Amino acid sequence: MDAFLQRRKLLAEDLTRRGLALAMFEDTEGRRDISIRYFTGHPGDALLFINADGRAALVAWDVNMANNMASVDQIFAYTDFGRSAYDAMDGMIKHFGIPAGGKIDLPTATPYLSFIEYVDRCPDYDFACTENNSSDKALAMRAVKDAAELDIYHKVSAITDSVMDAIEAGVKNGSLKSESDVALFIERALREQDCEATGFDTIAAGPSRSFGIHAFPSYSGAAFGSEGMSILDFGLVYKGYTSDVTMTFIRGKLEGKRAEMVALVQQAYTEAVALCKPGLPSRAVAQHVDELFRKHGYTMPHGLGHGVGLEAHEMPPVNLRESNTWILEPGHIITIEPGLYDPELGGVRLENDVLITADGYEVLTHSRIVQL
Amino acid sequence: MDAFLQRRKLLAEDLTRRGLALAMFEDTEGRRDISIRYFTGHPGDALLFINADGRAALVAWDVNMANNMASVDQIFAYTDFGRSAYDAMDGMIKHFGIPAGGKIDLPTATPYLSFIEYVDRCPDYDFACTENNSSDKALAMRAVKDAAELDIYHKVSAITDSVMDAIEAGVKNGSLKSESDVALFIERALREQDCEATGFDTIAAGPSRSFGIHAFPSYSGAAFGSEGMSILDFGLVYKGYTSDVTMTFIRGKLEGKRAEMVALVQQAYTEAVALCKPGLPSRAVAQHVDELFRKHGYTMPHGLGHGVGLEAHEMPPVNLRESNTWILEPGHIITIEPGLYDPELGGVRLENDVLITADGYEVLTHSRIVQL
Repeated sequence: MDAFLQRRKLLAEDLTRRGLALAMFEDTEGRRDISIRYFTGHPGDALLFINADGRAALVAWDVNMANNMASVDQIFAYTDFGRSAYDAMDGMIKHFGIPAGGKIDLPTATPYLSFIEYVDRCPDYDFACTENNSSDKALAMRAVKDAAELDIYHKVSAITDSVMDAIEAGVKNGSLKSESDVALFIERALREQDCEATGFDTIAAGPSRSFGIHAFPSYSGAAFGSEGMSILDFGLVYKGYTSDVTMTFIRGKLEGKRAEMVALVQQAYTEAVALCKPGLPSRAVAQHVDELFRKHGYTMPHGLGHGVGLEAHEMPPVNLRESNTWILEPGHIITIEPGLYDPELGGVRLENDVLITADGYEVLTHSRIVQL
Repeated sequence: MDAFLQRRKLLAEDLTRRGLALAMFEDTEGRRDISIRYFTGHPGDALLFINADGRAALVAWDVNMANNMASVDQIFAYTDFGRSAYDAMDGMIKHFGIPAGGKIDLPTATPYLSFIEYVDRCPDYDFACTENNSSDKALAMRAVKDAAELDIYHKVSAITDSVMDAIEAGVKNGSLKSESDVALFIERALREQDCEATGFDTIAAGPSRSFGIHAFPSYSGAAFGSEGMSILDFGLVYKGYTSDVTMTFIRGKLEGKRAEMVALVQQAYTEAVALCKPGLPSRAVAQHVDELFRKHGYTMPHGLGHGVGLEAHEMPPVNLRESNTWILEPGHIITIEPGLYDPELGGVRLENDVLITADGYEVLTHSRIVQL
């Protein structure tokens, strides 16, 4: 059975268990949901309907793309429904023969106004938009990587490592001197190694801009790797799955508060990774780093990490929020990315991707803080 | 008065007119809303609160960035509210001293589940999530460019034209041979001309992939400008505002159905642009092209165009949807981008940005179908 069919089967079992007749997923501008790619392979705008029997219909914006890339029982064109999600819902209810009174799961991101519209347009059906719905089930399934996904992650991690090695060499030998040099080097290198894209806009922030968590613009013509601290945060997408790493380059003598920041980030990273194991709440890892930083008078302005997968930010979160009740389990791939930032001294961040294994962890990528 | 203050003042007047005490905007992962940049200049994750007096508070994820870039009365850190939008709402209600019973406008994109949560958390207030709310007001304001925005558009259009000229020369002289060559040429060229970024992922699709509306991946190492039809769709961002153009490159003898497709797209483009003028429903322009294509047995699988601005897709839409009741007016900048696609013959699309003027139109960019 192909992986897509297997995934839809698991979702359908969950629908049956919860008494639902049909689930809809939506991947459109403003409401991206890469779960449609997870369930079908289709990487473009679409609505996906999966019924409790496991049958699936894709309503695709680009039918040519769907015919080439989607593994699904049936493909419809969005234009067949006047480019209206409500008309598509109505059509799919008929297509699947959902009896009146049937319960239909809407995506978590469904806007309040759209929910009202679905209810108005299909009054004979029971629309659900709840916690722990099919959107969340898909996120939970995606959090635990299967064997095929782990193979992809070992591959994309190796490519990412090789690109980091080349960048370190280029910054050291002076061939990569500006933020653009580094970012465009990545763009070209990834395509030479059969990757699809970057997982997110590459952040290359030289010493003048590294104080920002996410420098804006994400890269510019400014100097990179010059006196001070430069941050490079990037990911490569291979067969849909992204890596996510951050390197820091330091030029000049490391002393005073800057030296303290760098040492703390390195310590936080090392200790956080060493904690990773199945059964531990991800929040506990974030708390450990938070306490370390606070003890020295620092606060980290972002979460410690997050799952990676078809998206750069996936489940499980690795942050301090009380709502974060995730327990690490084998197959989770998370980032560990402590960082500290100072408007005058610049920023330092170190990030790698860490796989949770049966008895601990495996560090997949090998980023580092580089002293030039 | 600076442009940001002027814009907030107009929004506050609208709030007063509608009997609202406070409006919230949200620009976060999964719910991007560049209107926060429109109202404050802040380009990163944040919540923005504007009250009926025109006072504004930004709850920013990256306070260093906000302090550098936001023009706003007060800046708060998202971490001050435990990174919870509900706690931030509660805090801002107190900050602005909104009296119990006050009506608060939520963004259109507010998920059903979040709406319920706001109501639960702040039971003394009257939350609104309706059509024609502050989100829509902001979109309507953004659709009509002011003098400062028009200056930016003339500049970004000239840069875009110069990049298109350089690409045409490079494809003709053989220095740009692959999709990556073209896309990375754009990435470097835009930064040399003080642009921030591309407005969206550059689509460079050689003859093997141009049948897709949005080729996936958006560019690869495949040949570009070789025998057949190649599509290049890109935009450059200058001071936040994006251009959006599409060139088609044709190599080889143009005959049969392919010649018909190219001629029809050129005709559709020319006729659609000539129709543009204030007072005309944008839907009428789309209908004209739809009828032309249908008469020859073709259907266009996407809309004819859309507004451009701080986002690549803005108001007004230029499509056939019955819900599209937009009337063109001076200051609108729209794309006109007819295209036809065939799984075997490839695709052809021609797109430029068109400003609606007091008595007609001005074509801002000068893309074309290039016969190699």
